[in-house]
Amino acid sequence: MANFAKERDWDQFHSPRNLLLALVGEVGELSEIFQWKGEVPKGLPDWKEEEKVHLGEELSDVLLYLVRLSDICGIDLGKAALRKVELNAIKYPASNNNNNGTA
Amino acid sequence: MANFAKERDWDQFHSPRNLLLALVGEVGELSEIFQWKGEVPKGLPDWKEEEKVHLGEELSDVLLYLVRLSDICGIDLGKAALRKVELNAIKYPASNNNNNGTA
Amino acid sequence: MANFAKERDWDQFHSPRNLLLALVGEVGELSEIFQWKGEVPKGLPDWKEEEKVHLGEELSDVLLYLVRLSDICGIDLGKAALRKVELNAIKYPASNNNNNGTA
Amino acid sequence: MANFAKERDWDQFHSPRNLLLALVGEVGELSEIFQWKGEVPKGLPDWKEEEKVHLGEELSDVLLYLVRLSDICGIDLGKAALRKVELNAIKYPASNNNNNGTA
Repeated sequence: MANFAKERDWDQFHSPRNLLLALVGEVGELSEIFQWKGEVPKGLPDWKEEEKVHLGEELSDVLLYLVRLSDICGIDLGKAALRKVELNAIKYPASNNNNNGTA
Repeated sequence: MANFAKERDWDQFHSPRNLLLALVGEVGELSEIFQWKGEVPKGLPDWKEEEKVHLGEELSDVLLYLVRLSDICGIDLGKAALRKVELNAIKYPASNNNNNGTA
Repeated sequence: MANFAKERDWDQFHSPRNLLLALVGEVGELSEIFQWKGEVPKGLPDWKEEEKVHLGEELSDVLLYLVRLSDICGIDLGKAALRKVELNAIKYPASNNNNNGTA
Repeated sequence: MANFAKERDWDQFHSPRNLLLALVGEVGELSEIFQWKGEVPKGLPDWKEEEKVHLGEELSDVLLYLVRLSDICGIDLGKAALRKVELNAIKYPASNNNNNGTA
């Protein structure tokens, strides 16, 4: 991602808050896909293939800006996420079901 | 992630739109970290270590819900993201700098 | 709102993008209220009074930052909203029901 | 707003979480306006008239969905916002400047 941006002279635009707002923009586009649908079942059984492809693209856009934002902030996202999963495993033990996974 | 949720009986809560709203909530927390700071330079040179750890946690929360949302929707996020990167490479060739990487 | 901020020396913090990120943060808190609930019926018949008060507070926080952001950008939000309603009335005539109000 | 929606048979789409996701979508569009600009000064002195009109439209879209969401939830937004302003006036007295207006 860092090389990809550098080769395109995007570095000048990729400040932390620019990337954060771009991320918010993509989350907005992701939300628009779901906005008039009411609750949808897991696996999206009634969605057309093209709708799923579109969804995959918007999820990817969020991911790509998230990775880029982490990178520009000097955060190792993979390491941080693993650490968060371990913290969650301690905070919410598997035997204790009296919660709903809220952060 | 899927096993992690199953072991904790979270499956009942992890519908697509529940997870999407949880993702929006985490993006909100991520934004709060940056909200009163004005523009911040790359690498966050003036941030305290604890602020960076906090930032890493919020970035991770966004990632974990994004992965979980993709999973519950039956989308292969890794595959979709690679495809998006390839599409971007075609859409924005490295030699053409007359753009700013907007989706 | 402008006086309220000035009297508290908040003007230095109230730049357009700071306020925008604060707005995103509040929308995140609003989403958190709804995130694990599945679809909820109109009027929120099963919600406790304190949940509705909390909801009213988060809706208000979004409104107050929206008004403040508009103000700092020099946009007359009331005028702009009325104009948008008029444009919508033309774009989506009452007799034409073949749409769902998407912007 | 309520009549406007009713006349267009939009009521069926205007459930609380549908409107919330539509609001998130509009906040995303608002963010996109600011995403590649870096910090921008108050009053947006360098923006073209058409950019300001566009900004006014996106701010309005957020407002209109916020009003509609409040309405469908049975929340009196004007009353709730006034109450929140009063609470803020108590929480952050004008004489105490040692804060930045964070909620």
